[in-house]
Amino acid sequence: MRTVLLATLLACLYNFSQAQVLQPSAKPNAAQQRMIQRGYGMFIHFGINTFADVEWSDGTLPVETYHPTQLDPDQWVRTARDAGFRYVLLITKHHDGFCLWDSKYTTYDVATSPVKTDVVKAVSDACKKYGLQFAIYYSLWDRHEPSYKDPDKQKYVDYMLHQLTELFTSYGNICELWLDGGWDRKPGEWGIDQVYQLVKKFNPNCAVSVNHTIVNEEGKRQATIPGEMTEDNKYFFQYFPSDFRLWDPQMITRFDKKQYLHNGKSYYLPFEHTICISDRWNWFEKSAQLPVRELDELEELFYWSTDNNNCLVVNIPPDQTGRIREYTALQAISLGKRLGLALNKPLPKNGRFISSHKPATATSVYADPKNQYAAGAVNDGSLSSRWAAADKDTVATLEMELSPADAFNKISIFEYKDAKTLPDGFSQIREPRIREYAVDILTNGVWETIFMEAKPMGDCKVIRLPRSYHASRLRFRVIKATAPPSIYEINVIDK
Amino acid sequence: MRTVLLATLLACLYNFSQAQVLQPSAKPNAAQQRMIQRGYGMFIHFGINTFADVEWSDGTLPVETYHPTQLDPDQWVRTARDAGFRYVLLITKHHDGFCLWDSKYTTYDVATSPVKTDVVKAVSDACKKYGLQFAIYYSLWDRHEPSYKDPDKQKYVDYMLHQLTELFTSYGNICELWLDGGWDRKPGEWGIDQVYQLVKKFNPNCAVSVNHTIVNEEGKRQATIPGEMTEDNKYFFQYFPSDFRLWDPQMITRFDKKQYLHNGKSYYLPFEHTICISDRWNWFEKSAQLPVRELDELEELFYWSTDNNNCLVVNIPPDQTGRIREYTALQAISLGKRLGLALNKPLPKNGRFISSHKPATATSVYADPKNQYAAGAVNDGSLSSRWAAADKDTVATLEMELSPADAFNKISIFEYKDAKTLPDGFSQIREPRIREYAVDILTNGVWETIFMEAKPMGDCKVIRLPRSYHASRLRFRVIKATAPPSIYEINVIDK
Repeated sequence: MRTVLLATLLACLYNFSQAQVLQPSAKPNAAQQRMIQRGYGMFIHFGINTFADVEWSDGTLPVETYHPTQLDPDQWVRTARDAGFRYVLLITKHHDGFCLWDSKYTTYDVATSPVKTDVVKAVSDACKKYGLQFAIYYSLWDRHEPSYKDPDKQKYVDYMLHQLTELFTSYGNICELWLDGGWDRKPGEWGIDQVYQLVKKFNPNCAVSVNHTIVNEEGKRQATIPGEMTEDNKYFFQYFPSDFRLWDPQMITRFDKKQYLHNGKSYYLPFEHTICISDRWNWFEKSAQLPVRELDELEELFYWSTDNNNCLVVNIPPDQTGRIREYTALQAISLGKRLGLALNKPLPKNGRFISSHKPATATSVYADPKNQYAAGAVNDGSLSSRWAAADKDTVATLEMELSPADAFNKISIFEYKDAKTLPDGFSQIREPRIREYAVDILTNGVWETIFMEAKPMGDCKVIRLPRSYHASRLRFRVIKATAPPSIYEINVIDK
Repeated sequence: MRTVLLATLLACLYNFSQAQVLQPSAKPNAAQQRMIQRGYGMFIHFGINTFADVEWSDGTLPVETYHPTQLDPDQWVRTARDAGFRYVLLITKHHDGFCLWDSKYTTYDVATSPVKTDVVKAVSDACKKYGLQFAIYYSLWDRHEPSYKDPDKQKYVDYMLHQLTELFTSYGNICELWLDGGWDRKPGEWGIDQVYQLVKKFNPNCAVSVNHTIVNEEGKRQATIPGEMTEDNKYFFQYFPSDFRLWDPQMITRFDKKQYLHNGKSYYLPFEHTICISDRWNWFEKSAQLPVRELDELEELFYWSTDNNNCLVVNIPPDQTGRIREYTALQAISLGKRLGLALNKPLPKNGRFISSHKPATATSVYADPKNQYAAGAVNDGSLSSRWAAADKDTVATLEMELSPADAFNKISIFEYKDAKTLPDGFSQIREPRIREYAVDILTNGVWETIFMEAKPMGDCKVIRLPRSYHASRLRFRVIKATAPPSIYEINVIDK
């Protein structure tokens, strides 16, 4: 017996030593390097919620609810391939606990549903077929599994370890594990270290993380949003170990830092962004057809998310038939074509931002004790902060300095919009405030207008200039607005 | 004396025989061939009206009104060159009678104004410099010149002949003469034949025409609009001879015919389209900055206007400084870059329209005794006819048959909009009716949505599909409208 125990222990140690276990570092380890190189993935939300037209369900929906009529996971991955994604990140189990594979440890899964296809297998097989890497999302929070409610927290941790063992031993290589729902328990109660070590045993290069990875103070839950984290070694792990940072659905600042603390040591952590291709933020597809995001917005968010050694996953969910809708697939494919994405090529980069942190002033600023809405917000590299004018009737203008030595030929503008939540409680529409506007530049003492438009600018306006300019100042001029104009970012770019 | 007279007569006959005088024909003559090959020109409205913020003036504005502060005709032609235009069509005299050159026959010209630059010379010189051809617009109607009011109509004809002699002998080759304002007299009172012969004497290959060239009945003024002229040898010259057809600002039908009648004989006549780059139809630039047309609309109108051996001139007017505004120039340059225009290359063509005249039906049609708003209007090749639904609240859909054998990858949609004239009496804004819509196709018995959008489609929506499709039917589905939806054209194209 002793010999067996010793052998097991040695085997474990051997595996563990092989693993890319997170070490204090100022540069990416092998797992992180691979992750950064992947860069662009397709997120697939699909499951029992798809058929109930909801985002979340509580684990009581009968398995019969799940009934795709034309389930076609090959089409999902083919779409990912056509759109230039490098990996597919599949929901294997959401908060409702319904499993997309035939799990030995629960009957709340596809195997007991009317359509028994092992979706995890089908997607992983298609990934092999089309040359894409395969990643999985797994919810820590489980609203169905009985052991979840056991006072002995390890019971449910064991359930997760069993299920993850199934997943990591049955479907070939899994490049990433995305854990979610940690808010339902204390961070220490999830057995994250056990999960991490199990996964690394199966695949040392699998990148593992838990949503809301980073907090302000060690051991507390409150956190600064990623759009404001511009300092190294200031923030702390909430879940350790994690190989990368998650904070769905936040965007990082363009001056994103990579060094985070745990027990006094500093670790390198890239960020993985999560966005929906839907303009209305539905993660699971709904019966109603909802519009997709504009191509210009998707392109700029792509650059924003990936330029800085970070990653982007775009959620493209199948509908109740079990297929991705054609118009949705087409938008992702159009984006891939526009960006010239190819598996054997590095991801394309945006141009140089010549406007970052240049002094900016506005003729009108919304009064606020913290001066939150000052003009400088438009080029601080954050999609969280914004300039706002005092009212809608003032013809507000915002001016920023530029270096005349810097050429530019592209301007991107992200307007703040009023979000209106629709009756479903999840989807939103964004209402523009600015209805007519112009961009002027000052060159050799003369102002000239290089762009003007008498309609809303959309979710991200990209002005592509067919000439390069040099200017000492740039002026954004609101001509007409229906509410106080407000802008997250105006980026002047040499592309 | 006799000898001198004979010599003069012989010289005239010699010159006349050299001229490309219009002959009955079913194909273009040399002047027309050159015109078709030019194809794409920049129209320049500039003159005394520019400084009075009006479209038309009555000839009483004092010459001091004309006072550009930074007159730069080189910039106009450089812009034309950068935008890929092949010729520049300059207003030399508008209805107000103010001349853009130093004319011996009037003092109502630049030479007596505060800024004496001979604009015709400056533009023709710049055309030589940049390798573009030079064309002129000259108004028949003259609200200033005293001889215009003389009961002897020949007096004013002589004035015109003198001025045109100045123009055709002082500025090098002139490829086109665009005559306007004929509505103010009877067609026979303008001495068009004298003008024509004079011009042909100077340049046999100059293409000459008078606005509103063609009428319904010989000798009468009423005319069918070009968008409905789909038959050869059915319509008549109003002004003979003319080398091409004009009808500002109408668009031809895609099934445009070229044979027109005069005295029982049939003549070949191409069409020259006139559009404004401005979204608001101002021909002379105004003090206020007005938005330019959308790039997609400009691109589709370019194809529509030039595909059928016809021509397009786009009006890009300088402002009161005497320069074309930068944002306006940039839109033309962006269009030229998108189209890949180059002087040494033939003009690009649109793809094949696979939807033309295919049977179409709609779930809702606006009731009208003439059945003017039937579904078939959307693919009849006319931007004059349109489908309209009965009301705004019905979720109207329009379906058309397609041949499954025909591939397509592009759809262009021209929505009818409500035009609202602005206080200046000239400029207009176009208000969309459709706010949310989708396009579905039927393939192998299954409908799928290939496009949807929850915002107005703009002045011409171009849907570029990253895949080619074959379908037996196409459905345009209005989801939300603020007035009865109405569509001029839905073109399904293999590009």
